[in-house]
Amino acid sequence: MQTLKSYSCSICNSVYDPSQVTYTCPKDGGNLDINLDYESIKKNTAPDIITGSNDFSIWRYLPLLPVLDPGCMGTPLRSVGWTPLYQPKKLIEELGINSLWLKDDGRNPTASFKDRASAVLIARAREIIADVVVTASTGNAGAALAGMAAAANHKAVIFAPKSAPPAKVAQLLIFGASVFLVDGNYDQAFDLSIQAAKEFGWYCRNTGFNPFTAEGKKTAAFEIWEQVILSAKLKKPLSIFVSVGDGNIISGIHKGFKDLQEIGWLEQMPRIYGVQAEGSAAIANAFHNMVEDIQPVKADTLADSISVDLPRDGLRALRAVTQTDGSYITVSDTEILAAIARLGREGIFAEPAASTAYAGLVKAIKNRLILSDDPVLVMITGNGLKDVKAATNAVQPAPIIEPTLEALKKVLKR
Amino acid sequence: MQTLKSYSCSICNSVYDPSQVTYTCPKDGGNLDINLDYESIKKNTAPDIITGSNDFSIWRYLPLLPVLDPGCMGTPLRSVGWTPLYQPKKLIEELGINSLWLKDDGRNPTASFKDRASAVLIARAREIIADVVVTASTGNAGAALAGMAAAANHKAVIFAPKSAPPAKVAQLLIFGASVFLVDGNYDQAFDLSIQAAKEFGWYCRNTGFNPFTAEGKKTAAFEIWEQVILSAKLKKPLSIFVSVGDGNIISGIHKGFKDLQEIGWLEQMPRIYGVQAEGSAAIANAFHNMVEDIQPVKADTLADSISVDLPRDGLRALRAVTQTDGSYITVSDTEILAAIARLGREGIFAEPAASTAYAGLVKAIKNRLILSDDPVLVMITGNGLKDVKAATNAVQPAPIIEPTLEALKKVLKR
Repeated sequence: MQTLKSYSCSICNSVYDPSQVTYTCPKDGGNLDINLDYESIKKNTAPDIITGSNDFSIWRYLPLLPVLDPGCMGTPLRSVGWTPLYQPKKLIEELGINSLWLKDDGRNPTASFKDRASAVLIARAREIIADVVVTASTGNAGAALAGMAAAANHKAVIFAPKSAPPAKVAQLLIFGASVFLVDGNYDQAFDLSIQAAKEFGWYCRNTGFNPFTAEGKKTAAFEIWEQVILSAKLKKPLSIFVSVGDGNIISGIHKGFKDLQEIGWLEQMPRIYGVQAEGSAAIANAFHNMVEDIQPVKADTLADSISVDLPRDGLRALRAVTQTDGSYITVSDTEILAAIARLGREGIFAEPAASTAYAGLVKAIKNRLILSDDPVLVMITGNGLKDVKAATNAVQPAPIIEPTLEALKKVLKR
Repeated sequence: MQTLKSYSCSICNSVYDPSQVTYTCPKDGGNLDINLDYESIKKNTAPDIITGSNDFSIWRYLPLLPVLDPGCMGTPLRSVGWTPLYQPKKLIEELGINSLWLKDDGRNPTASFKDRASAVLIARAREIIADVVVTASTGNAGAALAGMAAAANHKAVIFAPKSAPPAKVAQLLIFGASVFLVDGNYDQAFDLSIQAAKEFGWYCRNTGFNPFTAEGKKTAAFEIWEQVILSAKLKKPLSIFVSVGDGNIISGIHKGFKDLQEIGWLEQMPRIYGVQAEGSAAIANAFHNMVEDIQPVKADTLADSISVDLPRDGLRALRAVTQTDGSYITVSDTEILAAIARLGREGIFAEPAASTAYAGLVKAIKNRLILSDDPVLVMITGNGLKDVKAATNAVQPAPIIEPTLEALKKVLKR
């Protein structure tokens, strides 16, 4: 059953039929929100049907997604999502809060949160019979699109800034995508990918620009609803920490909770906290200046996945926080590195952007934005293996020794 | 309930009480098999109880494991195993076989199969109150031990050859382990770790040497039994392809199926195929020479996880194949690289050692060891992000272009 009803512009609120528009608002270029046919959803499904599903992936939420079943059974596209939650005791004690969940989206098929968006995007591409999909990416979104496209037998074209970490580029190539390393930054790769999509008739996945990315990302909200909110019987609203670059993950998560409220399945909206690197804080700046006008910055942070001059989904990312009584927090690269090391000591290897959300929680507790009885969830958006170089900066190097007990004893004595 | 009953030497069959011995046979140094109390298992559990479990991890098999529940709820240690199966259509058609499952153990918490062994090892360490665990590792086993130790709040010491890929070493350090890079090969790191364990009273996880590693690895057999054998109603025995270095994964999988036969839950033993790199083929050599005496080689292969001079679980690895009517196959590094690229085009990023198993299947079909109606499962033992350098060798590098449509068109015309 197709639940896609219409698009609304996030700036001017103009409503469009999906047959009229593919990407952004023709009037002002605003990103489009997808309106579902909420009445038919309410008629055709119920929380019990969803929570009783045997499909442990994002596809258990198909009745709440604006796409038809993409098929592709037995491929990685079918095993996106339903990622594990950790509740490390030592860490919780150390933070001095009562309850904490870390949701590890590094366990997705291509090892990042972006698989959610790319899987739903590929489902849409199949509906509109778009054989070639294209995206600009600092790495994760591209790897996700390349991986999901490979699984579904679509062709992927990826534009990445040439500074993207080698592991991420290797993933793109291995998944058989056509990769172009752009001698410029992410923003230039973004613009080029849109031009190329127009020129060659490719379907463009660009974050925010394509209304379906947020619809994929909202599945994380559904999982949080099912795995935490429904089962933990919280007394206070859940506070959710999300790292923010382009802003599409946080707006996608917000959209998921809005959908759940719309159909009457969610009583209390969680508070959403956006965390940005100090060196790439365009949205946080707007939040603290209490304006909706987001000014670009000259991005400079080691957290490559959230290093962005002009956030491509800034407005909705800002509203995800202002409309849920959350806040924006910025953290330094030093705090990000410390967060990588701290999570590692719990057996969780998070990439810099993923650790950023945890660093934000540490700061929020220090600043008493979060109190001990606030239930908290931190989204871990990508696996540390994606950016080993950054991880190496978070720890002391290992000593090299001769293969003898004497050599070992000498080092241990130091 | 403790099901650990006794140890039997794999060479001389001597039986030991677990209180008598910790590692190998005192008479001949043979690796020890763990004997479970099969009678009490049969009395206390049943297939329905296991398959009805809501625990989607290796811990659903706790009644068949020789350890007590390790606790550690809400940590990565509890989310090891129950890895997804892929059945990529294009690949199956291309291979000309009727059914194929790829079991993706790269989706484990530290991104390799070795989490299975290390999780069970940590459970054992908790029982015997061993605070410090130590291992030698080319990378994956160490990362798994370091990750699981961190999750359980144990201290880990890792000896790795200094040639281990940077991503694997970074993982060790991030997980807070004490890491020593040995100026020598894996075999020297192995010997040094045993000496250090003895000297400092640490609990040694070394593969094969510690009888509990195979017990962790056997959980893959249980999952294959539950996910494939029970549900697919196979007409011929399942053929399972496993890459082999030390030989402990293949012997662990064999042990799992033997346990299931022992308690009457498995009718037909699968055929197990070991795949070694041509440059590290000590066990395959013995197989083809029809001897049980395994001679060391001078290992030379890009598949670092299975690059081993003297396999530490060679005898049992050999018998896993001879006792199940399987075979040993060797593949070249070129074939391994081709397998990485081929799996990648299905959206599956496998490390070299993991791709080795698939390369072995390709060869087995060519040599008519596998016929079109043989149901086949390939174990993907580790994520390609673990060794990006090798992956880069499997593909052409991406071109660097100016961020303009003209530059793109120029490259596309080439």
